[in-house]
Amino acid sequence: MKLIRYGMPGNIKTGVIIDNVKYDTSAFGEDYNETFFETDGLNRLEQFVRNNKDQLTKISDDIRLDSPIARPSKIVCIGLNYADHAKETGAAIPKEPVIFMKSTTSLCGPNDNIVIPRNSTKTDWEVELAVVIGKKASYVEETEAMDYVAGYVLHNDVSEREFQLERGGTWDKGKGCDTFAPMGPFLVTKDEISDPHNLRLWLKVNGKIMQDGTTANFIFNIPHVIAYVSQFMTLLPGDVISTGTPAGVGMGFNPQVYLKPGDVVELGIDGLGTASQTCVAWSK
Amino acid sequence: MKLIRYGMPGNIKTGVIIDNVKYDTSAFGEDYNETFFETDGLNRLEQFVRNNKDQLTKISDDIRLDSPIARPSKIVCIGLNYADHAKETGAAIPKEPVIFMKSTTSLCGPNDNIVIPRNSTKTDWEVELAVVIGKKASYVEETEAMDYVAGYVLHNDVSEREFQLERGGTWDKGKGCDTFAPMGPFLVTKDEISDPHNLRLWLKVNGKIMQDGTTANFIFNIPHVIAYVSQFMTLLPGDVISTGTPAGVGMGFNPQVYLKPGDVVELGIDGLGTASQTCVAWSK
Repeated sequence: MKLIRYGMPGNIKTGVIIDNVKYDTSAFGEDYNETFFETDGLNRLEQFVRNNKDQLTKISDDIRLDSPIARPSKIVCIGLNYADHAKETGAAIPKEPVIFMKSTTSLCGPNDNIVIPRNSTKTDWEVELAVVIGKKASYVEETEAMDYVAGYVLHNDVSEREFQLERGGTWDKGKGCDTFAPMGPFLVTKDEISDPHNLRLWLKVNGKIMQDGTTANFIFNIPHVIAYVSQFMTLLPGDVISTGTPAGVGMGFNPQVYLKPGDVVELGIDGLGTASQTCVAWSK
Repeated sequence: MKLIRYGMPGNIKTGVIIDNVKYDTSAFGEDYNETFFETDGLNRLEQFVRNNKDQLTKISDDIRLDSPIARPSKIVCIGLNYADHAKETGAAIPKEPVIFMKSTTSLCGPNDNIVIPRNSTKTDWEVELAVVIGKKASYVEETEAMDYVAGYVLHNDVSEREFQLERGGTWDKGKGCDTFAPMGPFLVTKDEISDPHNLRLWLKVNGKIMQDGTTANFIFNIPHVIAYVSQFMTLLPGDVISTGTPAGVGMGFNPQVYLKPGDVVELGIDGLGTASQTCVAWSK
């Protein structure tokens, strides 16, 4: 199943995609949030769609998409989870997963503008596979970790490198600006992705390919990451773990290349769809 | 006004404290959450209490207190905001505020047990003044920052030093375990604290004073911190900024001293009340 949320902020509706056509599921009566995932919402939604397939209303293709999941309790990210990316940033290969957090206020729709923050000169891109957690996870064993996955979503872990690395303190400072977490186009449920560890992921800036990797190159795979994070904090239904980015980010170039107003970022992952974001300058 | 939340998880009710007596405010019909703060809830609650003062039900003093605010979108913390604490940990005085984040699942009641995580040997304490944000704050000027404060709450920023500092990645790894953010006993509104920059704060372990500081020693004061954080992420109503801890944490001792099951932590801040937490071992 492919889940979407759409409409303008303040009036977000839910939907599904069936055979490439978008349908409204407002009549289901629930947002795709913590309570939805916690109460077996995916199975209930599937049943609803099956029972109402002929009555569902089509959604216009030009509608704005929002993040396919409502604001989660947290967005946890894994840093340096591809060896080629660790190398390009001059970092050592981590011995165990690096964890940081994105402010959930950074969440936005997959095709929304990326707002380059005030005083930013180093806004960068990172295509990532994000895992959506389906049930509460605390001290999970790696062998059981996949039971806690609801599905996957395409994520651009937008990052301001000066804020992240040159302003003191943790990476969180450069990861949580508004619009720094475009997610979507859709949440694809786990059953539709036969092997999440063998997906191509790519990102272009102004039509030029910058990142072209595969999740086969994860240093720490998805079950390991879920089990690991769950030792340090409890993951709630609907929470997101973003699994890191392959080589090809702007700070890895010599000279470094950063986003500027007017730049267009396109990205995609096999089976998770594509997204496109235009960069704009911050304004009051 | 002093706001409390009380009862057992899954059945949390709201209340207020008037002249040291706790009263239930369930009839007000709202939790103290983002929507409450966003919709002028503090003023509406004050009106409700004034109009219903004679009808309010007293709450027994032996009731369990929960965090006085519902789970916020984020708990942002300022690291190393007292020079004496920076010194004891061997860190340089920061040139600008250090930011990290606590998983909001770490939030708990002020007198709940602190669960020492599995495999933890370095669970530590940090008494802190936490600021609760009253309205959405993005790119706020320092001169206007106090307008964004709803009130203050006592916070023990419990920290696992090995997870925080020796396991790679950011501090977040040692800050977000369950029960690592006891908050309360109450949220005190801004009007009741004449000078938040001149409050004594203290913490005892098993009756022995370990921290004894004053917010007069902040490196970065509250308006500066709010304005600063709001440059990097949007603060939502009900969000928490914890402002750092003075000297006297366990890692600052030689040899270092950490919490073990059975230890009792007591803490307090002038005007913000006191709290007491007993440490217990993690169990399945």
